[in-house]
Parts: sequence; C-alpha cells; structure tokens
Amino acid sequence: MHFKINSQVLADSLKKIEKVVNPKHTIPILQGISMEVTQEEIILIGSDSTESFRYHIPVDGESVEVFECGKAVLPKQVCEIAKKLKTQLELKLENFNLSIKYGKKSEFTLNTFDYEEYPKLPKFNIDKPSLTFKGADFGVLIKRTAYAASDSETRPILTGVNMSLESDCMTLVATDSHRLGQIKSTKITTEEPMSLVIPAKALDKLAKTFDLQEDISVYCESNNQVVFRSGQLFFYTRVLEGNYPDTTRLMPNSFKSEMKIGRKELLDSLDRISGLASGADNGKGGVVKLFVNGAATISTHQSQIGKGQEVVEYEELNGEDNFTISFSAKYLIDALKAVESDYILFKYQGDNRPFIITPTDSEYDETQLILPVRTLT
Amino acid sequence: MHFKINSQVLADSLKKIEKVVNPKHTIPILQGISMEVTQEEIILIGSDSTESFRYHIPVDGESVEVFECGKAVLPKQVCEIAKKLKTQLELKLENFNLSIKYGKKSEFTLNTFDYEEYPKLPKFNIDKPSLTFKGADFGVLIKRTAYAASDSETRPILTGVNMSLESDCMTLVATDSHRLGQIKSTKITTEEPMSLVIPAKALDKLAKTFDLQEDISVYCESNNQVVFRSGQLFFYTRVLEGNYPDTTRLMPNSFKSEMKIGRKELLDSLDRISGLASGADNGKGGVVKLFVNGAATISTHQSQIGKGQEVVEYEELNGEDNFTISFSAKYLIDALKAVESDYILFKYQGDNRPFIITPTDSEYDETQLILPVRTLT
Repeated sequence: MHFKINSQVLADSLKKIEKVVNPKHTIPILQGISMEVTQEEIILIGSDSTESFRYHIPVDGESVEVFECGKAVLPKQVCEIAKKLKTQLELKLENFNLSIKYGKKSEFTLNTFDYEEYPKLPKFNIDKPSLTFKGADFGVLIKRTAYAASDSETRPILTGVNMSLESDCMTLVATDSHRLGQIKSTKITTEEPMSLVIPAKALDKLAKTFDLQEDISVYCESNNQVVFRSGQLFFYTRVLEGNYPDTTRLMPNSFKSEMKIGRKELLDSLDRISGLASGADNGKGGVVKLFVNGAATISTHQSQIGKGQEVVEYEELNGEDNFTISFSAKYLIDALKAVESDYILFKYQGDNRPFIITPTDSEYDETQLILPVRTLT
Repeated sequence: MHFKINSQVLADSLKKIEKVVNPKHTIPILQGISMEVTQEEIILIGSDSTESFRYHIPVDGESVEVFECGKAVLPKQVCEIAKKLKTQLELKLENFNLSIKYGKKSEFTLNTFDYEEYPKLPKFNIDKPSLTFKGADFGVLIKRTAYAASDSETRPILTGVNMSLESDCMTLVATDSHRLGQIKSTKITTEEPMSLVIPAKALDKLAKTFDLQEDISVYCESNNQVVFRSGQLFFYTRVLEGNYPDTTRLMPNSFKSEMKIGRKELLDSLDRISGLASGADNGKGGVVKLFVNGAATISTHQSQIGKGQEVVEYEELNGEDNFTISFSAKYLIDALKAVESDYILFKYQGDNRPFIITPTDSEYDETQLILPVRTLT
C-alpha cells in the first residue's frame, strides 16, 4: 500500500466513519480503521461490531494518487494526525508499519492491525436497493419517531423504531410505552410488504452523518442487518429481533376536545415551568398540570421550591373547554420539538387517557401520543 | 421587597455572580442568591463560602423601578426564569414567598431562604484599595502564571499564585513543582511591600468574569481574604495560608544554548506529536524528545502505537547546537499557550536541568520554566 492524499480529504472521509469507532473497544482491532486501497478507490470502514460505516474515496489522480494497492487496519491516531495537518500526506505500508510523511522531514510510523482479522461486512447487491427515498423525507421520518424510543434495555425491542412498508404507505413508529411517535408517508410504497425494527440510536447517527440533501437507499438482504447508502457512504446496522408490539389499537379516533395552539409559545412556557418542576426532580423534567378553560394554563407546584403558572392563549377550541390533565413536561417538550408547524392540535380524550399532538400543517400523517400521569390532587 | 426589573438586566446581573453558586451545596442557603433591594441599588451576592461574587444593579427608574426595599435569599431557579423570559418582571416578597409576575396572568411563587442566615461578607474600606491596575495587565499576569499552579491538594500552597509587591516591581509566580510560570511587572509598585497567595482557580474565574477593559482594584484588609473590584462587580476569595516556597533560587542565569524558534510552529508540531504520545498515556500528554542539531526535531516512540517525528526549523541559535532533552509535551504546550509572541527563546542549561521559555517580544519580564523528564534511552 502506497499512496498520496490531501490531508483535508482524508480527514473529511475519516470523519464520516469514525463516529462508531470506539478507541476503548474490548476487541482491539475494532479500535482501528479498516483501509483498502485500489487503483479506483480507497475504502474506509469503521465499526463497533453492531454498527459500521463504510466510505469510498475516489482516486482522482489529484487529491488522491495511488502507487501501490494494499489493505491495512490503521490505528485511530491516523484521524488525529490527518485533522491536525493541512498538507499533502504520503502513506506507505511495510510489514504492518504505516509511515505517514509530510513536509520536508516529518514522519509518523504507526503500528497497524492485520487486515485479515478485521470483521467482514455482509455482502449485498448494490444495484438492487429494497427501497430508496429522498434524504430530506427520511430525516423527517426519523425526527418524528426516534426520540420516543426507549433508552432502557428492559424491553430491547422498544429501543428501536418499527419501519413497516405496505402497498399504500410506509409507517414509522417508536414508543417507550409512556409516549409514542408515529408518522405515515404515502410517498413511499412497495409491492412486497416488509417490517423491520431499527435501533433508534442508529437512525439518529444516520441522520447526523448522511447528507440529507441526497437520496438514501436501503438494502435489507439479511434478516439481522440493514444497510443504508447515500452516494459513497454506507451505514450498516443490526435489526432488532422480536415482534414489535401492535400499536394501532392505541390510536384513539374520537376526542372530547381539540385545541389549536401556538407550538413555539407552548414550548417556551413549558420550558420555563419545567425548569421549576425539574429542580425538585434531578433534572428529569417533572410533572406539570395543564388546565384548559378559555386559555391554556400550565402549572407546577413543588413544595420545596415553589410554584409557577403560565397562561398561553389558544387559537381555537372545539369541544369541551374545561379540563385538567397532568403529564411529564419532558415528554410534551420532546414531542413539540419533534414536530414542525406553527400551530399544533392538542387532542384530549378524557381523564387519564392518552392525549395526542398533531401539527396543523404537514404533508405526512403524524401523531405524537403521550400517556398522562395520574396525580392525587 | 417589591420592584420591577427588565428580565435581561436581571439575567445579565445574575450571570456575573452565579459562577460560584453550587445548586448542590451542602449548606442549603448557599444554593441560593442573596438579594438586597434599596432605593439606590439592588445588591446580588453568590457564594460557595470560599469565593463570593457581589454585583450592584443601579436603580435607574427605567429598567429597574423599586416600590419597596427589602432583603431575601432567592433560590437559584430565579436565574433560569430570568434567562428564559424577555419581558418586564415584577418581583414581590411576602412571608418568605417571592412572586415573579410577567405577561398578563403568568406568575411564579418561589420559596426563599432567611436573609439573616446568609453568611456576611467581610467589610473593607472601598475608598482605599491596596492597589489598582489595568484589567488588561492583570489578565496577562494571570495568563502567564495560573496555568502552572498545582491541581492537587497534596501541597495546598502550590494551588495558588504568589503575588508579591515590592518597591520596584510586582512578581507573580506559580508552580506545581514540575513547571513554573513567573512574570514581573515594573508598572505596579508600592511603598508597602506585600505578599499573598491567591488560589489559581479563583484568578481564572476572575479573568473570565471581570471586564478586563476596566481597572481592577484589590483590597487586602484581612489576613485571609482578598477582594477584587471592577466597577459594580466585587469578587471575594480566601488567601492561602502558609509560606510560599522561595523560587528565586530556581531561576538559572547562564545557559548552554539559546534557540529562537516560531511559537505557533513549535506548538502545532508538539500538538501532533503529543496526540500520538498521549494515545499510550490516557490523554495525559505523554513524554516527547527534543533533539536540536541544525533544526529542532520533536519525536516520540510509543511501542504500542508507533513513532513520530516532526522537524521545525529554528530562526537562530546561540551556543551548543547538539543536545537532546525529554519532557512532558503537555507542559511545553501549556507554556507556549500561556505566552504571546511570534517567537520564543528556548534556553537550555544542560542534561536533566530545567529549561526556560521566554517570549522574544514582551513588555514584562517573563519566564516559563519546565523540568525535563529523565529517560533511560
């Protein structure tokens, strides 16, 4: 292996794949970065064994020039070195030692790992994606749902987002059993129905790493892996095993009251009130009370600290205009941040029954559902 | 207590004093903020018992309007509330309950602490500062020294910066016994010699909080406290007890070699090399070797990871042009960051003897001293 590369190109490429590389991984080789150099491209892989990124750098003869092909697993220090230099680098592998030369006399020589010991990524047919969507759409689908997945491994299936595709629409749903985010899109359809549960954290990582201006292709050729691709970047993640709970029965159809209210205004008020509530609650957000009667009043009472109430005028209300409901401020804040719309509908079903937030303006069918908290007073 | 205040004015004022307020302080009243409202000013105090900030907000009848004087210790939540609102606030105290009203119907009611139980700050004669200097000068004095103080409480006196004032100059010095930062200024002189040891962390806090465009006055009326003042902001900190070690005998006078070299260039090279060295060292910076012979070569060899060397051309060298010295990369990086000059002089005394960094261009007498590390090879 022997090639020249612009340090900026190498640093930018490494940045795309290093998010999953853990420098303290118990399997030492996974602390490194797999590199395969051919005459056409340099393939970089970073992996933590459940999630992997793969990126292809094209050999253009200008910013990248290859003299000799080869394979190696480089230590992660190569990322730091590439980031800190602004120059042309010459990399050469000899007997598991990678030399990086730059400037007149400066040089690093890094020990590498044996490429043959690096776990192989599953193969798939790159020409036949299971489906393809616009990155911007996929970003929305993730934002509306992934936040509601569970953080806890008590029920591992709930740490995922259930993506199911039918002939007429695609549905994403996530729930931690206290709240639920769901979005349906009729833009993406398929002849072959499919359903898989993808770890919410993997989807978050994908949304942060992929260029959402580009198309994203999905490949589901094996039962336990799914691959996402956008241009030269590939993301491999495991699929969660098990049956995702049926959440359709949780979706209410009729409501006692539907209140149209400013999203930003409600969010700001909740933020201030929850600041007080969370003071007594180690920052977990605290429970707040919503009282609707001519306006929406959010309040909290923490015997240790004090009490607060904010009044937010609603735009419109259909149905019962006199109800009270208590809930975790954090859950409603998360839901209001996950949607994008100037106004939302707050749909009330009755005491101790889940309530729903929907944006008034969306090209998707969206539902954010929250279970209220029972309180004694 | 009853007054109106612009939330921005309150938030900005609270920001100046809240750095020392610990919401988990074991003494509950110190979790709060002391407030005294008079017709002329509102006095805010935040304290962690060893360090305190005090800030006076003038009552101007516009952004602050006082209806009734009073005293209270407010819970820290008041900071969050003030920061999150952009409006006029009306604060009123009744029976240890502080109500904060804003907008049409929104209101917080916070429990307060008993003002009489809040620790009193030591008194001093505000008209007679012990000395006064320009903030910009004081900022430089702190930057050159505080970084070299010890983090460890093994020898508490070394966690401080020794500030000593004589008839002809003021000297600040800090050392953790492995490295030392010293600066002398002839701009500040006094007829009454004085010497005190101020915690380095307090000086850091001061440099970050005070407006260094303004003059800073120092009051040393008691043996264990010193007060800094800039405009309406006061900072109280304890003085470390004990005798500061005599560091004058550590200052070498003659050198085997003096090398003039680019500060930024040396810093960037060290940064890259130490990235490799620290990999084997849990991020502690690692030991690097400097070999000077026609140029400065910095290198490291970590058997686990690999080796690296960078060559930095020097500008000029007087004396021996063939020596090798090993040291903690972090110490030299810290010292090079603490000084400001395009070039520095690297002054070499001989094997295993401390070396010195001085800026080539400074209006002060500055010395950064570093003890080398003995190595077997």
